[in-house]
Amino acid sequence: MYTVTVRDHMMIAHSFKGEVFGPAQRLHGATYVVDAEFKRAALDSDSIVVDIGRATDALKRLLAEINFRNLDDVPAFTGRNTTTEFLAKHLFDGMVTAIQAGELGSGAAGVEALKVTLHESHVASASYEGRLLDAR
Amino acid sequence: MYTVTVRDHMMIAHSFKGEVFGPAQRLHGATYVVDAEFKRAALDSDSIVVDIGRATDALKRLLAEINFRNLDDVPAFTGRNTTTEFLAKHLFDGMVTAIQAGELGSGAAGVEALKVTLHESHVASASYEGRLLDAR
Amino acid sequence: MYTVTVRDHMMIAHSFKGEVFGPAQRLHGATYVVDAEFKRAALDSDSIVVDIGRATDALKRLLAEINFRNLDDVPAFTGRNTTTEFLAKHLFDGMVTAIQAGELGSGAAGVEALKVTLHESHVASASYEGRLLDAR
Amino acid sequence: MYTVTVRDHMMIAHSFKGEVFGPAQRLHGATYVVDAEFKRAALDSDSIVVDIGRATDALKRLLAEINFRNLDDVPAFTGRNTTTEFLAKHLFDGMVTAIQAGELGSGAAGVEALKVTLHESHVASASYEGRLLDAR
Amino acid sequence: MYTVTVRDHMMIAHSFKGEVFGPAQRLHGATYVVDAEFKRAALDSDSIVVDIGRATDALKRLLAEINFRNLDDVPAFTGRNTTTEFLAKHLFDGMVTAIQAGELGSGAAGVEALKVTLHESHVASASYEGRLLDAR
Amino acid sequence: MYTVTVRDHMMIAHSFKGEVFGPAQRLHGATYVVDAEFKRAALDSDSIVVDIGRATDALKRLLAEINFRNLDDVPAFTGRNTTTEFLAKHLFDGMVTAIQAGELGSGAAGVEALKVTLHESHVASASYEGRLLDAR
Repeated sequence: MYTVTVRDHMMIAHSFKGEVFGPAQRLHGATYVVDAEFKRAALDSDSIVVDIGRATDALKRLLAEINFRNLDDVPAFTGRNTTTEFLAKHLFDGMVTAIQAGELGSGAAGVEALKVTLHESHVASASYEGRLLDAR
Repeated sequence: MYTVTVRDHMMIAHSFKGEVFGPAQRLHGATYVVDAEFKRAALDSDSIVVDIGRATDALKRLLAEINFRNLDDVPAFTGRNTTTEFLAKHLFDGMVTAIQAGELGSGAAGVEALKVTLHESHVASASYEGRLLDAR
Repeated sequence: MYTVTVRDHMMIAHSFKGEVFGPAQRLHGATYVVDAEFKRAALDSDSIVVDIGRATDALKRLLAEINFRNLDDVPAFTGRNTTTEFLAKHLFDGMVTAIQAGELGSGAAGVEALKVTLHESHVASASYEGRLLDAR
Repeated sequence: MYTVTVRDHMMIAHSFKGEVFGPAQRLHGATYVVDAEFKRAALDSDSIVVDIGRATDALKRLLAEINFRNLDDVPAFTGRNTTTEFLAKHLFDGMVTAIQAGELGSGAAGVEALKVTLHESHVASASYEGRLLDAR
Repeated sequence: MYTVTVRDHMMIAHSFKGEVFGPAQRLHGATYVVDAEFKRAALDSDSIVVDIGRATDALKRLLAEINFRNLDDVPAFTGRNTTTEFLAKHLFDGMVTAIQAGELGSGAAGVEALKVTLHESHVASASYEGRLLDAR
Repeated sequence: MYTVTVRDHMMIAHSFKGEVFGPAQRLHGATYVVDAEFKRAALDSDSIVVDIGRATDALKRLLAEINFRNLDDVPAFTGRNTTTEFLAKHLFDGMVTAIQAGELGSGAAGVEALKVTLHESHVASASYEGRLLDAR
């Protein structure tokens, strides 16, 4: 299995509901350094998994939708705790949609699986990984 | 599949038996930067894989049992080479026990798999990964 | 010159005033991975720059005062942009006060200079460095 | 599943053919920080996955074959784009051959799978992972 | 003293002349992860060292001039070994020029010193640091 | 000022005397990832600060003297706490001696200052920096 991974980051505010979150129930924030890892069994005719330039651009566009925002005010997240693992799935879904819309080029149609990892500090991270077929 | 990873470290002394270890047969030591990665297919009702605070505390307790020690003198390890990969399995077993004892909260009962990685330097690491059901 | 550096992190929300900040004028947030670097010309009688355990605890206490908060609501910061470099100075001042209050032990009286660095992402950081005598 | 990972690097020049590569069609270069991750279900009698010294030496030898070279002039790569993911597979094949030739010791015969990852910058990487049985 | 640091990277080919360089006399290449660190004694009225967005853009423009190139063919470098430390000085000079041309905004006129660091691998880096007044 | 930095590591056991060390009074150990940073105001005729290959070899030789050892048994350290900062000075002295003995080549005679940093974990490090003239 081949993979290619690209990295970018976003800086957001949010708060959580639930005693389990302790002080994180207060409005606070995070820098998420985000890795998008694309997987496929065989390379395309250019010897690549995905166009790394387009993948980087697609990740930047996805992050721009929520970057520099208070996620408590984003309608799509109403009633949800925007935990690191929840955001990993949100970005996974967005990247799958981008691939299927052709934003990463026709070659990206061969991508079989995707993993999105968010590093929230030097001591904690979360991810979501799924197959693209499962996501359709 | 969702994951959450937490990190801590320990500093131990030990020696190895066997020619394959070369100079590491002498009493020496290591800092192990330890990652515990928890995996599950669906988030719980709080939108989390596991309570990151409790996971961090559980990892710290596990490491405290052998931190700042000469592992050659730890009865549980008698007759064993406490290699990085061996210690990864040791910590895996300890964390599985902690999860099953409820130390990470009732929500952690949904954790399906665990991976423990020990970084012994900037150029070497080792890990053990297993399913929790297999470990029971 | 000897140094010892300890690391911890905090997760805060804030917004900035001024066109120069672009989208960061909106309420957003950041994880700051914080390094406190203590400097002195000679080691004390224990062969240390500072008690690393006490230094770590002092850094954690300093960060706890503003961790998991919206800095726009912290009275001490009213009317100020809590930029990364501003926060570096804020934490520098706090650590100097802690040293002078004896919180890091009597040995820390020999610390001559301090540098506080905040890493806000994998591509940006800021710091403040000063002499302790200057800060008195 | 146990893993052991060792790291080294190489510095090469190359160019790519195909519009998808944009400015990378020009002769340029890269540092690849390379991780070789060895996997097996059970440790050998020394409590190791593989002799870490021999694994490190084998990786260094593999990299030396193409290190400090213009890959456009390497006969084995004629007519191929030596992308990061392509090189990951090239090094995977070389390491499998080394294992099967006994270069990592007889214990390494128990290695079941291998993953080779090339970090090309702080924001991009690629890898190839396969089972050793599949590679025979 | 305050600092702000921004990071980007470039991927180049080159060769060196001189026996001291061993195999690096051959045409090879490197990824340079580049940090530009801006220093000043006092913050400006926005509480910043420099506009981090403009600094990032300026660094990207500087790198673009030589990114994805064979430095042996760049006229400005004729007859010079484009070592990591030499390139650090080259980028230092370019950034000083950009600051003095107002590309980083009028606030950047207060920047007193600059350090440019190039990381060429996980085990080696080089830098050049100087005062801006000295560079005029 | 130009710098070049090279990195290697060592794995040692030791114990400390003094209540300030708490559990580190017990025999334990550490991996030290060691950076040696060479500084000079002007490059030599090859456009380098120091021969990076020779610098790397010299660092490896220095570390080999105490690598895979229990520092409590090393005669040179009798009666001393081999703290991270103490070891930074020890390695600084060794590297200065190596430079002055010509082990890094005649060009290294131009090195003016040296900084040795030991990273003992992902959250702590120590260093010693001095001028070479001062060290003579």
